[in-house]
Amino acid sequence: MLDKLQELKTRLAEISDLGSAAALLGWDQETYMPPGGAKARSEQLATLRRLAHELFVSDEIGRLLEDLSGPAADLDPDSDDARLIRVTARDYAKACKLPPKLVAELARTTSAAVPVWAKARQESDFALFAPHLEQIVGLLIQKAEALGYQDRLYDALLDEYEPDMTAVQVEAVFTELKAEIVPLLRAITANLDAVDDAVLHRDFDEGKQWELGIEVLKLIGFDFEHGRQDKSTHPFTTAFSPTDVRLTTRIDRTFLAQGLFGTLHEGGHALYDQGISLALDRTPLCEGASLGIHESQSRMWENLVGRSRAFWRFFFPRLRAAFPDQLADADAETLYRAVNKVRPSLIRVEADEVTYNLHIMLRFELENDILEGRVGIAEVPAAWNAKMETYLGLVPPDDAQGALQDIHWAWGLMGYFPTYSLGNLISAQFFDQARADLPDLEAQIEAGEFAPLLSWLREHIHRHGRKFTPAELVERVTGRPLDAAPFVRYVKNKYGELYGLS
Amino acid sequence: MLDKLQELKTRLAEISDLGSAAALLGWDQETYMPPGGAKARSEQLATLRRLAHELFVSDEIGRLLEDLSGPAADLDPDSDDARLIRVTARDYAKACKLPPKLVAELARTTSAAVPVWAKARQESDFALFAPHLEQIVGLLIQKAEALGYQDRLYDALLDEYEPDMTAVQVEAVFTELKAEIVPLLRAITANLDAVDDAVLHRDFDEGKQWELGIEVLKLIGFDFEHGRQDKSTHPFTTAFSPTDVRLTTRIDRTFLAQGLFGTLHEGGHALYDQGISLALDRTPLCEGASLGIHESQSRMWENLVGRSRAFWRFFFPRLRAAFPDQLADADAETLYRAVNKVRPSLIRVEADEVTYNLHIMLRFELENDILEGRVGIAEVPAAWNAKMETYLGLVPPDDAQGALQDIHWAWGLMGYFPTYSLGNLISAQFFDQARADLPDLEAQIEAGEFAPLLSWLREHIHRHGRKFTPAELVERVTGRPLDAAPFVRYVKNKYGELYGLS
Repeated sequence: MLDKLQELKTRLAEISDLGSAAALLGWDQETYMPPGGAKARSEQLATLRRLAHELFVSDEIGRLLEDLSGPAADLDPDSDDARLIRVTARDYAKACKLPPKLVAELARTTSAAVPVWAKARQESDFALFAPHLEQIVGLLIQKAEALGYQDRLYDALLDEYEPDMTAVQVEAVFTELKAEIVPLLRAITANLDAVDDAVLHRDFDEGKQWELGIEVLKLIGFDFEHGRQDKSTHPFTTAFSPTDVRLTTRIDRTFLAQGLFGTLHEGGHALYDQGISLALDRTPLCEGASLGIHESQSRMWENLVGRSRAFWRFFFPRLRAAFPDQLADADAETLYRAVNKVRPSLIRVEADEVTYNLHIMLRFELENDILEGRVGIAEVPAAWNAKMETYLGLVPPDDAQGALQDIHWAWGLMGYFPTYSLGNLISAQFFDQARADLPDLEAQIEAGEFAPLLSWLREHIHRHGRKFTPAELVERVTGRPLDAAPFVRYVKNKYGELYGLS
Repeated sequence: MLDKLQELKTRLAEISDLGSAAALLGWDQETYMPPGGAKARSEQLATLRRLAHELFVSDEIGRLLEDLSGPAADLDPDSDDARLIRVTARDYAKACKLPPKLVAELARTTSAAVPVWAKARQESDFALFAPHLEQIVGLLIQKAEALGYQDRLYDALLDEYEPDMTAVQVEAVFTELKAEIVPLLRAITANLDAVDDAVLHRDFDEGKQWELGIEVLKLIGFDFEHGRQDKSTHPFTTAFSPTDVRLTTRIDRTFLAQGLFGTLHEGGHALYDQGISLALDRTPLCEGASLGIHESQSRMWENLVGRSRAFWRFFFPRLRAAFPDQLADADAETLYRAVNKVRPSLIRVEADEVTYNLHIMLRFELENDILEGRVGIAEVPAAWNAKMETYLGLVPPDDAQGALQDIHWAWGLMGYFPTYSLGNLISAQFFDQARADLPDLEAQIEAGEFAPLLSWLREHIHRHGRKFTPAELVERVTGRPLDAAPFVRYVKNKYGELYGLS
């Protein structure tokens, strides 16, 4: 058995190396690649991904997994090896279900759709994008059918990003969440001016903001010996190994929150990637447990830490040292309030903690309606706008600010959006547990000591990589299944106080 | 036949994509990779190279080449397709001759040798490196035997870098060169103070030097839409396609020539890579014809253009605009003389145009002596020092400044050094032809018009990529075989005048 396991690992390491190389090509594309290099790059990426896929769905891997399935039963079920065999077998079964022709057609279709979507958004012309979306939805339905599902088409797509999660489960937590958030937002909306964020909209030198971002990353424990930060139009984090993790940020000279919270958010992803056990390197386990769990880490550092009063008591003097003139009239409380201003808006990526999940629910419901034929492609903008009015009290003046705002559908990503909200919910659930295990957590944050929290995250979450499913991990860490209550409590307490709601 | 040719091209494109991905990984390693990412990177690179090799030596490629060998005879022998088949068949035959075990052992041995070499150089302790060099030489002899050769072991190794060139041919041009250069150098050495380069050793702001390098690259025609420049410890150029060419430079605040001529040198390589016909992209023809031909392009821009009086008449005012204080007492002629100062030195990479080739001859002769057993590994330092004294009149005070100075042997590169000198010779031979074809060339350079020269290089050299062997290309461009005379004439005229040698 050891021989076969070793052979499996050797093959998986090779495939992982191809994946890491592709990730570097992707990173370079967004950071340093000259514009004229785009065509060659897309060919290189297509080749690497095709080879990785071919090597993975090979008969040899299938045979090794089959040969190992018996002996694996004798292993400690939570051991790295047992989990590696289990997760790889699951990935293998899924990968083999997808006809190569369908994969190629999805790649071709989405790659043609992206520039059309960009043009459609620019011209706010949904009709331009509609035929492409129609095609993509058709292919996604084929994909869901090929992958199989118990209950709904949506389950098959969601499973790609949040293994074992179902649309019904998402619906349950979203229903609970909606029941609490919509009234909360209504109360806040009646009192919007209670919080002022003018202090963030001053002139903040870009170079100083950059230095500050590096300082923040060092403070929270990002290891620059094994990673780096660069600039890109759309911030993201990528890893080629736990020993080489790259995040990017973008800086807005006239809006301090952009760079700072972008760095904290991506820094949270990056800490997760750096914290995965090296024993899992070059295997399919060397990734986050799911997109939702990954997002729980970014949102925890961005919001539960970075938007806390304790953090601002610690961080304000450092910020003022960098920007003494801009912040001459401010104090820690001014900043704490400013970075927590709620402002219902049309655009998801600009949304605050209270409204963010409403944007996601809208997309989740609409995607289900589209996949199941209840909303035709032509009706998407109207359906979008109706939901916006219900949940946020706003109606998009055009589709650029409505159904065309996200690139996800053009990329062929449906079933992906819920992971953002799941990340918010899980971050609060994890943070409650961290507070229970680390009674001094708030005082530590206020003293700028982030190492205890990071150690806790490493021990309970990061090091495991993809060994456990998201549901298993949430249960292991918190002793309870996924639950919207901690997040609801958190926002109600925090924003209730900020907005003077009883 | 068209079907088979298309299939061959599809397979070669895939292999080329893997090579380009590996090149990006290599570029990142030298520019942006965090130090802790090195181990993972070397695994990723090993995997990409092994896969590319396996795909290339596959039976399918062998069969396609065999099937195409007949029909290829009916093609225009200079057509892209005929050349592609011929060059690929040659590469394939060579690749199949190398036992995978030998390739792996060379990779392992050299990868272990490099850090030992670095330590040995730092401590100037040749004995530390000697056992590794012994092993490497043993493996290189096995490699040469596996590849086969007509005359000398050296030929098999040289052929990797300079296809079809033999040690005897190199010896012939080197003998001619040595007969002229050694007396010239002796005459210059008697009069060393005739040229003063103090003006280059002042304080030149790094940011301004960087800007100047970008300006120079734009002037000579480097296309930033399809390439970029970055910083690295050791300057190099790499290409992932003619549409994405990257060069690097390093800047020394106290020595202006370092960055400026480094940029011109790498810029020459980069112009070559950008100029290869896009019809050859993603094939084995999309590279320089040989290392010697590649070096002819870098040396032409660095020396024949960048160290010419015409260039300095044009460039001096721009340089002074960047550094008005540092250059207040200088004029174009001061700079022209300074950048051409001859200074016999122990270190190859610091050598001027006159002494550079003597460093190469020493290595060429010594490598032949080592491979053929005339010089044992333990005797290398003494043999090195004796030749240094003969050719340059200097004796290294330690091996760090002698036989340990270059990384090449630790990397397993023997037969590589001559390509540097061949590049020098070919650059002069090509430039003579360019001058004959472009009678206004000098006036154009003096006017800062580099486009005519670049167009000439594109037309006669760049666009062909690897279609022609170096010998064929030299013959096609200049109507004559490789010849040391143009270079000898060039240095004798130029340095005779500079040093007042009758």
